[in-house]
Amino acid sequence: MRNWLRPSFPSFPWASIEDVVEEPMMPPEPTHPYYPLGVDIPAYGENEAPVPVLLAALGGTLCFAVLSVALIARKLNPGLSASGLAVFCWFIMNASLHCVFEGYFVLNHATVASSQSLLAQLWKEYALSDSRYLTSDFFMLSVESITVFVWAPLCLANAIETARNGPSRHALRIVACVAHLYGVALYYATSQCEFYFTGESHSRPEFLYFWVYYVGFNLPWAIVPAFLLVDSVKAVTRAMKALDKADVTLSSHRLRTRGDVGGQLESRKTK
Amino acid sequence: MRNWLRPSFPSFPWASIEDVVEEPMMPPEPTHPYYPLGVDIPAYGENEAPVPVLLAALGGTLCFAVLSVALIARKLNPGLSASGLAVFCWFIMNASLHCVFEGYFVLNHATVASSQSLLAQLWKEYALSDSRYLTSDFFMLSVESITVFVWAPLCLANAIETARNGPSRHALRIVACVAHLYGVALYYATSQCEFYFTGESHSRPEFLYFWVYYVGFNLPWAIVPAFLLVDSVKAVTRAMKALDKADVTLSSHRLRTRGDVGGQLESRKTK
Repeated sequence: MRNWLRPSFPSFPWASIEDVVEEPMMPPEPTHPYYPLGVDIPAYGENEAPVPVLLAALGGTLCFAVLSVALIARKLNPGLSASGLAVFCWFIMNASLHCVFEGYFVLNHATVASSQSLLAQLWKEYALSDSRYLTSDFFMLSVESITVFVWAPLCLANAIETARNGPSRHALRIVACVAHLYGVALYYATSQCEFYFTGESHSRPEFLYFWVYYVGFNLPWAIVPAFLLVDSVKAVTRAMKALDKADVTLSSHRLRTRGDVGGQLESRKTK
Repeated sequence: MRNWLRPSFPSFPWASIEDVVEEPMMPPEPTHPYYPLGVDIPAYGENEAPVPVLLAALGGTLCFAVLSVALIARKLNPGLSASGLAVFCWFIMNASLHCVFEGYFVLNHATVASSQSLLAQLWKEYALSDSRYLTSDFFMLSVESITVFVWAPLCLANAIETARNGPSRHALRIVACVAHLYGVALYYATSQCEFYFTGESHSRPEFLYFWVYYVGFNLPWAIVPAFLLVDSVKAVTRAMKALDKADVTLSSHRLRTRGDVGGQLESRKTK
């Protein structure tokens, strides 16, 4: 029986045994668990911390940060409504995630795969659902850089304006919500487009990674901003309608007043 | 002298003249003018129409469409200001470009390189500054699909609301401007990111292609939306400030009235 692992070398009369080495033709064992199979992730080091510890560390820190900032906001503005407080918390959470979690990726994307820091391990766990975070993908780097340097400060501004019920709260909210919606749409679209045309997925196929991490963890950035956007567009439209109405009333009042003055002048002239 | 075009074959005693063919080792002549050199653009067919004809056809059609729609808008709403008309024209131009030019790309991206239709030839000319339009790049496909199916109708809605001075004009304008700004930022960022990390550019290096096509043709989508965005955010903020002030005045008036009523009730009880 032919040994299929052995390549069929021509039997050159001068070929020594060193030349005809037995080289396996099986695909090499993958050195990492990421998809698509064979994607190049050099210097990958398996996570040392278990997943529940990683998730608890992220969730705990985030909850503590958001709740403590929410308490301060409530103290500074006791008139802040429950919905206002919820919006405030949403933007504080966004600003924190953009700054710390995504900021870490932007600054350390080249070494995430080999690092054992808490944030690197979190990224390595999430990357099971999207390996682009471990391959310095140009789209991911671009979208995350803009998120960190533009949308993070904007989210902070949104939180502050919401807490103080500032007049630019709705305008800033529309900007941030469109940014989040467009970002998440492009995030899903680029990977699904690649899957459609090449059949290659950046996500592992298991339910946890595809549906919980890839779909589920990003879905809030499609649902919450859509809801806030519609609400703010309605609020702004109502405000503009009221103001336009007031403008029209004032203009017609002015016209009538001018008309009266004109009439008086007219009657004076005719006298 | 050794003929460097000829590979150095071993002089096998059984090798016939057919086996030792002269194969040039020079890189193959590029079959297209696009960058990065060697990028795969199969079935490329050189443009048949000269560049001035292509640009005149696009510019002429666009100008004719925008101006005729502007005339109709001016007739339907004679009170439309000059700035309002300019904004209207901007959004009509955007809706047309998104629908027709970018719509063609989304539907025909796979055959643009080989086609000789007017729009395909225009894309092939523009692609000299960005070959991603001829390689079905996943980011380009994603961003252009969202542009065609979401931002094009939004631009049309913006044009209509601007023409009729509708109350949602500023809210819709903020949405469209953020979309354009984010889109153009990602467009530049993804290609510059790739250039930074790999040294490979999708644009030919000539002044016309890099500075005029790639930078210049996209710059209006960074400048005009930024200007409109700031203007609309200011207008919305002013409106909200006025409305919040009116709300506070009404509330304090109501409180005073209630206080009076309370006082009267109090005095009645004490009587």
